[in-house]
Amino acid sequence: MSLPLFFVEILPDGDEYLLTGAEGHHAATVQRLRPGERLLLGDGRGGLAEATVTATGRGVLTLAVGVRRTVPAPVPRLVVAQAIAKGDRGELAVQAMTEVGVDAIVPWEASRSVARWRDDRGAQRWRSTAREAAKQARRSWVPPVGALESTAELARRTPLFVLHEEATARLSTVEIAGDELTLVVGPEGGITPEELGVFTAAGGVAVRLGAEVLRTSTAGVAALAVLSVRLGRW
Amino acid sequence: MSLPLFFVEILPDGDEYLLTGAEGHHAATVQRLRPGERLLLGDGRGGLAEATVTATGRGVLTLAVGVRRTVPAPVPRLVVAQAIAKGDRGELAVQAMTEVGVDAIVPWEASRSVARWRDDRGAQRWRSTAREAAKQARRSWVPPVGALESTAELARRTPLFVLHEEATARLSTVEIAGDELTLVVGPEGGITPEELGVFTAAGGVAVRLGAEVLRTSTAGVAALAVLSVRLGRW
Repeated sequence: MSLPLFFVEILPDGDEYLLTGAEGHHAATVQRLRPGERLLLGDGRGGLAEATVTATGRGVLTLAVGVRRTVPAPVPRLVVAQAIAKGDRGELAVQAMTEVGVDAIVPWEASRSVARWRDDRGAQRWRSTAREAAKQARRSWVPPVGALESTAELARRTPLFVLHEEATARLSTVEIAGDELTLVVGPEGGITPEELGVFTAAGGVAVRLGAEVLRTSTAGVAALAVLSVRLGRW
Repeated sequence: MSLPLFFVEILPDGDEYLLTGAEGHHAATVQRLRPGERLLLGDGRGGLAEATVTATGRGVLTLAVGVRRTVPAPVPRLVVAQAIAKGDRGELAVQAMTEVGVDAIVPWEASRSVARWRDDRGAQRWRSTAREAAKQARRSWVPPVGALESTAELARRTPLFVLHEEATARLSTVEIAGDELTLVVGPEGGITPEELGVFTAAGGVAVRLGAEVLRTSTAGVAALAVLSVRLGRW
């Protein structure tokens, strides 16, 4: 089994470290790690340090810190612009996309997004979901969740691929180049013809996966799996 | 937009058809289809008939039935043996796997499956989830959900691929042949060494996707996306 991962703000630079707070509670009380067991500390930005438990307390672990290393950021960077969805579908999408390796997430307020975000709490929820999912998936990079973008803002991103069930180009064969790409995933009701027009007028390319109509919480994960194979990550 | 799909037990053989029951309610009252609008009737086993609404009633549509056709079953057949999961994770897995094109689902009672099924209700829930998801995804084939299988029963299936984070073989490059393959997805706590031993002793091959640790509700979907590209479906 790969070692359990716990996130800290800044990696320790000394040989001993006290893991406290929510992560200390999780490690000591929920996962019940014991002296001698090993874990990873991560800063969520590629920095990792191996550590061994030397003592346990109530919600706190004392750790002997060992080898440090830095995992480089993946290239190209896979960004998904995920439409705000109703209920928990947005969080489910963020969770699963983080597991399969999305590099950054941009919330998009689409015309047919039933839910609306009136303040920053929606983005905060997605951030906390991404962090938890990265921890569970043992990812050294936590994908940042950006600020809400409009259709016009998204259209400025290049290259831009728009998942659309009526597209003729396939994501499995479309040409990919550059250090970053953005993939647009529409809301439950779909992307409107007007939105598609704005994206394609700016150079965006409509692409599809198979013949099936995918839910917004499934489409991004499936697309990232396809890209991960194409880019040799998987 | 592709036409909305409604499932019926047996496709009509005449020119006129009354869509009643739950599907009639959904079409007439929820989706509010109107005279002149078109839809598809499906039997969930590849049979499809185009139809046009000619009259509407309370929870019922009168349809003029047009062209019938049969979509052949996909080959090879992609079967996923999905470990029973806690909470709604099993249903989420069945829903998303059906969207991306799984051809059959087998529930598996793994050692680390926290939930247990004492009667047929669990499988019934998965069947109804698969049917709803197939309708939403406009799939002409509803993936059957088989009876619960034990580890020994699963191990008899061939070829058998077991998703495992410590595998060295990659699903993206492993050799695939034959008319059917079964992919095993473990429970939240993972597949035990004993279970993996039973599978590999019987000829099963452990495979992985990337380096990430995937939730049980994400793993099958990601694996099916990889296979869909490899098999030219996507």
